[in-house]
Amino acid sequence: MRVEVLERILKVNDALAEEVRAALDRAGIVAVNVIGSPGSGKTALLEQTAAVLHPRVRLGVIEGDIATTRDAERLVRCGVPAVQIETRLVGGACHLDASLVRMALARLRLEEIEVLFVENVGNLVCPSAYGLGEHLRVVVASVPEGDDKPAKYPATFARASAVVLNKVDLLPVTDFSMAAFAESLRAVSAAPLFPLSARTGEGLGGWLAWVEAQRADWGRAP
Amino acid sequence: MRVEVLERILKVNDALAEEVRAALDRAGIVAVNVIGSPGSGKTALLEQTAAVLHPRVRLGVIEGDIATTRDAERLVRCGVPAVQIETRLVGGACHLDASLVRMALARLRLEEIEVLFVENVGNLVCPSAYGLGEHLRVVVASVPEGDDKPAKYPATFARASAVVLNKVDLLPVTDFSMAAFAESLRAVSAAPLFPLSARTGEGLGGWLAWVEAQRADWGRAP
Repeated sequence: MRVEVLERILKVNDALAEEVRAALDRAGIVAVNVIGSPGSGKTALLEQTAAVLHPRVRLGVIEGDIATTRDAERLVRCGVPAVQIETRLVGGACHLDASLVRMALARLRLEEIEVLFVENVGNLVCPSAYGLGEHLRVVVASVPEGDDKPAKYPATFARASAVVLNKVDLLPVTDFSMAAFAESLRAVSAAPLFPLSARTGEGLGGWLAWVEAQRADWGRAP
Repeated sequence: MRVEVLERILKVNDALAEEVRAALDRAGIVAVNVIGSPGSGKTALLEQTAAVLHPRVRLGVIEGDIATTRDAERLVRCGVPAVQIETRLVGGACHLDASLVRMALARLRLEEIEVLFVENVGNLVCPSAYGLGEHLRVVVASVPEGDDKPAKYPATFARASAVVLNKVDLLPVTDFSMAAFAESLRAVSAAPLFPLSARTGEGLGGWLAWVEAQRADWGRAP
């Protein structure tokens, strides 16, 4: 019964995700679902991305958190239109779903956005099963989490369009092996890997170029 | 309907948790549910704990992961009886539940264990709602995750019997504020806080004394 109910929930979510996707496509927006553990640096990555790309590439952000509006405030300070979803106010969900994103979209001026980042709740597991109508998925891992994460959370990494490995500035002070991480990622995914530090700015170039290329590929298409 | 089904699942889990708790109590075992983000250092903490306390304090470990048996293997190398639950084999669950722990208990010699650590799936959200029949809950956070985690995951921290802040060796190379972390923890919990580094061994003393005191309080009681 548990599985049956979950399947029904996922089916409803999929239908809503299709609606969200259609609305995004009409507006010429590329949406990126950003998934990662608590503290992997998802918001810091978006701040750095905004600092360089916005408003040349017009960004928008939907922030998902169980509690607090801190993350949306951080993006607003970067000049990016951002709305916060506090999932504890809608039942404490451990992940965003398409209905929450649909509500958040109504609070943004879609005509002003080319690339919309949807930062999921800090959780490397549950967000993986719930499509939000996004075009792309980015998984953000970080050096202090260890080089075994793709092996231990294979379903999440397998669905990534790109993987960011954040906090490479901590490589010298941890036991992290870049070769081991890359190997365990390759076992489940062919997605491009961007090792970088959102804190120091090291390695951001490849990631930023990728983001901009996605806009060119998807957005404002005839 | 979603909420109703969840309530039913939680009620079944609660009943099984009572069974587990009774079995543990009969065996004079103190069980500790260890919750934390992916890569917060839960297994490393248990390795260090085993290295000092075991077998003077006779430990046992149940490891929960979505995939791989690596964590149990790490503990077995420390000489501790350990069994692995791979949740992907039972539906990919993002948290342990009491039925999984009950099955794992059947694979351990309970009479040889005084303190049983149950390391949950790496997830700061979902494990919080599912009791496993444990006597105590430890939340493991880590410095690179940032000092805002208790504010952003309040329900998880509010239910902690103790909080470990791991990776304090990285304090000099991060922007983490110990005062901010302690303040945000105090807003939701009065649990003791143990800042330490499982990697360097710094600060382990307080944590180890706490573990040993729990045995004295709970275990082998008349």
